[in-house]
Amino acid sequence: MDKKRSISMAVIKRLPKYHRYLSELLRNDVDRISSKELSQKIGFTASQIRQDLNCFGDFGQQGYGYNVRELYAQISEIVGLSNEYKTVIVGAGNIGQAIANYNRFEKLGFKLEAIFDANPKLSGIRIRDIAIDDIDKLEQYIKSNTINIGIICVPAVNAQKVCDILVNNGVKGIWNFAPVDLVVPEGIVVENVHLSESLLTLTYLLHEKENEIK
Amino acid sequence: MDKKRSISMAVIKRLPKYHRYLSELLRNDVDRISSKELSQKIGFTASQIRQDLNCFGDFGQQGYGYNVRELYAQISEIVGLSNEYKTVIVGAGNIGQAIANYNRFEKLGFKLEAIFDANPKLSGIRIRDIAIDDIDKLEQYIKSNTINIGIICVPAVNAQKVCDILVNNGVKGIWNFAPVDLVVPEGIVVENVHLSESLLTLTYLLHEKENEIK
Repeated sequence: MDKKRSISMAVIKRLPKYHRYLSELLRNDVDRISSKELSQKIGFTASQIRQDLNCFGDFGQQGYGYNVRELYAQISEIVGLSNEYKTVIVGAGNIGQAIANYNRFEKLGFKLEAIFDANPKLSGIRIRDIAIDDIDKLEQYIKSNTINIGIICVPAVNAQKVCDILVNNGVKGIWNFAPVDLVVPEGIVVENVHLSESLLTLTYLLHEKENEIK
Repeated sequence: MDKKRSISMAVIKRLPKYHRYLSELLRNDVDRISSKELSQKIGFTASQIRQDLNCFGDFGQQGYGYNVRELYAQISEIVGLSNEYKTVIVGAGNIGQAIANYNRFEKLGFKLEAIFDANPKLSGIRIRDIAIDDIDKLEQYIKSNTINIGIICVPAVNAQKVCDILVNNGVKGIWNFAPVDLVVPEGIVVENVHLSESLLTLTYLLHEKENEIK
């Protein structure tokens, strides 16, 4: 039986959070945890947790709780971390450089293979042992190498063009930091990090609180 | 009548997207747009758009559509952009520096006032005219200055401590990039940007597609 068919985006969005909390528990040498204890940490209700994890199989044992190491391994597998992901960053501005320098991703199993930028001044500059290449070389590079995830950090106006080059040459996953909604063919996955939108959500909520007080 | 009471988080999360699309239309000198045309651009259904905007008032006119400039101004007001926001960044590592250098936020009306970091080697280094200060000075600074939004870019282990300093001294909004869920008193707004979680959502979806193909 394939349980995955019916899994909602809401559950999917919670999985990385389970992954993070379980990795913390592991680091703190916690062997097992009940859904109630996990609930107190993670902030979802215990029944929510049981329901979420039930989407993927029978984890946990009545009266024992969850084996932290096993559950962590299983969630790692579910979120696809048993695969290796080769990535490229396109756009080595502020955000692109920050992502390139962020070693947390490497620890999770992501391997940054190349960085591209349109600015000739950046060409050849090394970030963590990877020399920035001219963006003109992107297409050929993607054709000749297997890259799983393209990280788009170029200005909005160039993002779709970059996305097309990546996708037309076999990249299946796009992590998009440009403030645009990319158009991709079926079968391609796009995950957006829209910083300005996040900031405006914050100001909306601040503004709302202010109005409540008035 | 206060329509705001019943506005769901889903609608709130869509508002910044309306804001972004309307600002693009403005830049392209579009005067008015129907919900149908807006729908084709933004990817929500026309009825969704009408429903969303109806939460906030009577925008748009039957047979005319929306006046782009007016709607943009009204949504700017709704998301709180008529206020000025003074911000500080705590943590001048990769992400903190990237945010500090990102001039898009300034254009939206956010004013970066100070940057703090625990690393003495960074003290005094200037990012866009702001010298990085030692984190020991954070508390005094927040006490003596009105800061609306604290941007937390420190490692996970220090994030709650930094958050407490900010919140205990009057900061009402936290934009959190640390991979932790912060605990704050009622009345404080936290908006998270959890990059690793976003990346794991991408790998989950990639992994799922892969399984579909098999």
